[in-house]
Amino acid sequence: MAETASAEPVTGRAIVCHGPAKDGKWKIEDVRLRPIKDNELVVKIVASGICHTDLVVGDADEGFGVFYPSIKGHEGAGYVQQIGSKVTVAQPGDPVLLSFAFCATCALCTSGHPAHCIQFHEINVFGRKDKDFSLASSDTDAEPQISGCFFGQSSFASMSIVSERSVVNVKGLLNDEELKMFAPLGCGIQTGSGSIVNIAAAAPEDTVAIIGAGGVGMSAIMAAKMRGCRTIIAIDRVESRLELAKQLGATHVINTATMSSLDEVVPAVTGLTEGLGSSITVDTTGFLPLIQKSIDFTRPRGKILQIGVAPMDGKLEIPPIMFMVTGKQYIGVIEGDVVPSNYVPEMIRWYREGKFPVDRIVKFFKAEEFEKAIHEMHTGGTVKPVIVW
Amino acid sequence: MAETASAEPVTGRAIVCHGPAKDGKWKIEDVRLRPIKDNELVVKIVASGICHTDLVVGDADEGFGVFYPSIKGHEGAGYVQQIGSKVTVAQPGDPVLLSFAFCATCALCTSGHPAHCIQFHEINVFGRKDKDFSLASSDTDAEPQISGCFFGQSSFASMSIVSERSVVNVKGLLNDEELKMFAPLGCGIQTGSGSIVNIAAAAPEDTVAIIGAGGVGMSAIMAAKMRGCRTIIAIDRVESRLELAKQLGATHVINTATMSSLDEVVPAVTGLTEGLGSSITVDTTGFLPLIQKSIDFTRPRGKILQIGVAPMDGKLEIPPIMFMVTGKQYIGVIEGDVVPSNYVPEMIRWYREGKFPVDRIVKFFKAEEFEKAIHEMHTGGTVKPVIVW
Repeated sequence: MAETASAEPVTGRAIVCHGPAKDGKWKIEDVRLRPIKDNELVVKIVASGICHTDLVVGDADEGFGVFYPSIKGHEGAGYVQQIGSKVTVAQPGDPVLLSFAFCATCALCTSGHPAHCIQFHEINVFGRKDKDFSLASSDTDAEPQISGCFFGQSSFASMSIVSERSVVNVKGLLNDEELKMFAPLGCGIQTGSGSIVNIAAAAPEDTVAIIGAGGVGMSAIMAAKMRGCRTIIAIDRVESRLELAKQLGATHVINTATMSSLDEVVPAVTGLTEGLGSSITVDTTGFLPLIQKSIDFTRPRGKILQIGVAPMDGKLEIPPIMFMVTGKQYIGVIEGDVVPSNYVPEMIRWYREGKFPVDRIVKFFKAEEFEKAIHEMHTGGTVKPVIVW
Repeated sequence: MAETASAEPVTGRAIVCHGPAKDGKWKIEDVRLRPIKDNELVVKIVASGICHTDLVVGDADEGFGVFYPSIKGHEGAGYVQQIGSKVTVAQPGDPVLLSFAFCATCALCTSGHPAHCIQFHEINVFGRKDKDFSLASSDTDAEPQISGCFFGQSSFASMSIVSERSVVNVKGLLNDEELKMFAPLGCGIQTGSGSIVNIAAAAPEDTVAIIGAGGVGMSAIMAAKMRGCRTIIAIDRVESRLELAKQLGATHVINTATMSSLDEVVPAVTGLTEGLGSSITVDTTGFLPLIQKSIDFTRPRGKILQIGVAPMDGKLEIPPIMFMVTGKQYIGVIEGDVVPSNYVPEMIRWYREGKFPVDRIVKFFKAEEFEKAIHEMHTGGTVKPVIVW
């Protein structure tokens, strides 16, 4: 079934983005893959989480990293079908979870921080100059027209070309059903939890405020609970998410939809934290007015972690003298600053130990229902949609 | 000679600020101290460093912490003359170095971070509602008119009332001449070095950029050299300071006075750091245009430490998405986040070991020459002026 080489082109189905999702320009189509290179694999994708970043670059008319036609998806899970001649990370048949790609040679990669790879955007977001997919209906001799390799994987496809560096081999760690459920580990879930564990180094004495109770925020909440943080405050505007946040570990919730002004969020948080504010604040929204307020509700020497994707031209106003006096810290983090090959198996272990119930935030959709999945993500009805092929 | 109580009022001389220094309103005058309280000491001040903060609040017409008449000075060194009934930190006759005061009860103080005491400004900068000094010429029955207890010490006086918490007892650690030289340890020198050692945790692989080669900046440079940092870049606009910076450990210097635009500082730093930028950036100037540039010349995952006192209403523009992608960190620090009673003796030990040559940055002035000292500080001719009584 699985092969190490193939003369016949590999075919499959994919959500091809011909334009913004909001304009109905994402379409499921039959596609053909170009032959893989030495350091690539063909992975039969069984599931892929949908992440906000897929929409940032796939639901806009233009902007940073926006181009069409292309195939998005970067929380893939599947089975290896083919491997390039230099691939050692997995063998055909191995179950794999997919994460971001990185250059492996820059100063950040070689010092153990591939998520902050100097070429992160170039490799993961901009896609390749050379295309990976063709429409199956096109002439087999024509050059491929559709960009792939989004985050090294373009996992919104039933078969995809995957960069070796995006692969976390999970052979022996899980069963077939779990593989689907764990699809989002390699992006949203590591982003939220890794920030709490690696960067904030959260501890029992911490008072944590999480802005945004989506997939990333819920993962941060689960991680904060796992670390025993005494106060965990979830901030969102969707009541059902806040209810789930409580079940996952939030000790308090704040619904900003009930406020007449966002100014109210500051006393709301300080009132829950002995008047001091949160010692760890995590923004998962990129919503500037709330991030700006979060600086005020973070306590002296507190850390404000920027995880959410803010607008490209967005700016925070930070007063140096207030930071100096209070010792506050504003810290950017991407992908939880994790090394996925180490961290993904660790998250699976936490799940097995009952400390990291990712099953509580995942909802499956058939690939054909991707529009419904996106809709529920927007309304907040689903925390982490996972499409299944 | 030294006493534990006294019926007679203590008298001395002080630089009394009747208005801004620039208007010639600092005057040496004979003063009389009010009786000390249970947790206070009378210290015979032998020397006091002059720090930028003395001028921020003593050379302005109005603003945050600006009030007259008052006595500034917060890098004092001296000998205990009297102690209040509850004082245990020192006995009459003990040599002491003076540092900031703190409440000792807030969450920051009790967790080992008194420099970020919630009441730091109230205790150290605003001074007391009840005054500490009278002019000696005034009626002995009149209430004191002059504010003291600046940073718990008001050390621009030959005799001063000192808060117990400001006292670091250095009995047995130094001789009389060294006591004068070490006067600035308790503020400027711990601020620069403590930030490098405690907050940045600088290590040999670090590339460090220090903005401003004054007393704080030179202390940061000495500390970076002590930690073996492979690249240490001093940035200033006074050539003589940059020359001294090289002698104290800077591997490279950048003179911004030679630039037609501050934009040039970015390639200047990245050009010295393999194109990546500095892994640790320390601003000691509070000069916003340069701090703004420093964000650009700090490498991914680099730390930007805000030590310099920026204008009260100053704002930096920080782009959240750039911070997220690069993992940069903007961190406020005051007083190096040190506990002076531990850290001051440590600096003395480093000096003894030849690793921390504070003697190279100190220049003594007679108290009567305070205007000359301030002038040389402004022009850059003196790095750390110390007035001697």
